[in-house]
Amino acid sequence: MSVDLLVEKIKAKGNPSVAGLDPKLDYVPEYIKKKAYAEYGKNLKGASEAIWEYNKGLIDAIYDVVPAVKPQSAFYEMYGLYGEEVMHRTISYAKEKGLYVILDVKRNDIGSTAEAYSKAYLGKVDVDGEAYDACPVDCITVNPFPGSDGVKPFIEDCKKYDKAIFTLVKMSNPSSGEIQDLISDGEHVYEKIARYVNKWNSDTIGKSGYGAVGAVVGATYPEQAQVLRKLMPESYFLVPGYGAQGGGAEGVKSCFNSDGLGAIVNSSRGIMCAYKKGNYKEEQFAEAARAEAIRMKDDLTSVL
Amino acid sequence: MSVDLLVEKIKAKGNPSVAGLDPKLDYVPEYIKKKAYAEYGKNLKGASEAIWEYNKGLIDAIYDVVPAVKPQSAFYEMYGLYGEEVMHRTISYAKEKGLYVILDVKRNDIGSTAEAYSKAYLGKVDVDGEAYDACPVDCITVNPFPGSDGVKPFIEDCKKYDKAIFTLVKMSNPSSGEIQDLISDGEHVYEKIARYVNKWNSDTIGKSGYGAVGAVVGATYPEQAQVLRKLMPESYFLVPGYGAQGGGAEGVKSCFNSDGLGAIVNSSRGIMCAYKKGNYKEEQFAEAARAEAIRMKDDLTSVL
Repeated sequence: MSVDLLVEKIKAKGNPSVAGLDPKLDYVPEYIKKKAYAEYGKNLKGASEAIWEYNKGLIDAIYDVVPAVKPQSAFYEMYGLYGEEVMHRTISYAKEKGLYVILDVKRNDIGSTAEAYSKAYLGKVDVDGEAYDACPVDCITVNPFPGSDGVKPFIEDCKKYDKAIFTLVKMSNPSSGEIQDLISDGEHVYEKIARYVNKWNSDTIGKSGYGAVGAVVGATYPEQAQVLRKLMPESYFLVPGYGAQGGGAEGVKSCFNSDGLGAIVNSSRGIMCAYKKGNYKEEQFAEAARAEAIRMKDDLTSVL
Repeated sequence: MSVDLLVEKIKAKGNPSVAGLDPKLDYVPEYIKKKAYAEYGKNLKGASEAIWEYNKGLIDAIYDVVPAVKPQSAFYEMYGLYGEEVMHRTISYAKEKGLYVILDVKRNDIGSTAEAYSKAYLGKVDVDGEAYDACPVDCITVNPFPGSDGVKPFIEDCKKYDKAIFTLVKMSNPSSGEIQDLISDGEHVYEKIARYVNKWNSDTIGKSGYGAVGAVVGATYPEQAQVLRKLMPESYFLVPGYGAQGGGAEGVKSCFNSDGLGAIVNSSRGIMCAYKKGNYKEEQFAEAARAEAIRMKDDLTSVL
């Protein structure tokens, strides 16, 4: 009922970062695609198998550097059932390698439907008395728009199965303010959500001092992060927007607590496409990813 | 670039309702489950195949009564890859039967990730120059929490591929007000979102007079529906909360325009579990679903 496992892995690796696995096809080296298309066809299956080879290479290169990976489900769903299967394969492989897996699904719905999503990813699926894992991960992202009803089923499974969630609070994109920055009763909507997150989190605190209900807080808005850090002192922050989206280490500093914990910073394109910068051949994509993951770790730890 | 196809089907059947396909396992008749478990095992595969038989029976019974079906992805994702496969099979079957398919996924993310979701369900997936359908449906539901950035990729595909979306505006569950009913500048958040929807919708209007960007508006809050109807005169409303969730035909009346169009009312449990009420044997689940679909149609059209 906490993020203790994540905190352990962060401490063990001395690295508060997560590698996003958002495998756009134009990130994948040509030689990998060529081989996959030759074997499976230039189709949804071929694309999915290319993504699998790429993901496997990335995981092999970084699993001892980063504590966690974050597959983004959209980039698997877009290849239909083949893509979904590769997402499952990627999750299993990352877990075998000892990585904490945050599945970025941003699921949301009302009560009983939220329950179904929660069972799919965090809980167990009951088939008339037999319990099964459908797509088990350590943690997922959740959209809080439906309110408490929609979030509570996830929290229940966090408690029951020792899992965690990150709730969207303030996103990193330019238009995130349209709803999230509206002011109501002298407070931004993202602050209101932060108060809910803090409340939901309060009875899930583990031995690390952090609870199961974390928050997505964009690195692109450091001043807001500072406010949010105070409103949710015991919630872990998942921080997108480092690197490619513009936020640097100084920008994400305010997402951390004074103990140097409390946040995990995501980089997707920065790590996955590191081979496209500098003097790398595409065959060196994994080596380049590893170098960038180490550079990012050093960059982050230098400000903490 | 509109909901013209949906309006055509609604007019042809004289029925502004959609049958939700949210196949919880305890909705499925025992004899169907018994058979599926015997053939595939009492496991995720067996559960998925039972759901398929049930869905097929329901679709066969109601396809000439209702214009549309709305599978809820949570209840397929929870059975993992087997469930996903049955969701794809259900979608294909419903389309073969001439039904308009609204996939209830409530997807949401920032720019390029929203694009990936959109390609998965509304657009085409590009595999180095070859275009494929991943999971093609007529329409999906979208969560607007990330703001315009996150919604526009879906709208682009609506324009390009003649599809539609329903954006969450005001949901039907008790806690939906926690974010959606907050007041900012003298207006509820759901009204603010409605203004965005109306703007996004404005250059997608088809010959029916309705555009591609619809709104989810809960039947449980009729007064709010009245306000929202005025704010989004050219948007179709997807209305959950009829029947099982408490809203009756009178309650949903305010979701319609004076032309008797502008809304499609969902019933999931009411139709799927009709055999559990009255003097039905479970083998008559399809017959009962048909009777309830017809009763609902008569109930709705009586107030229009």
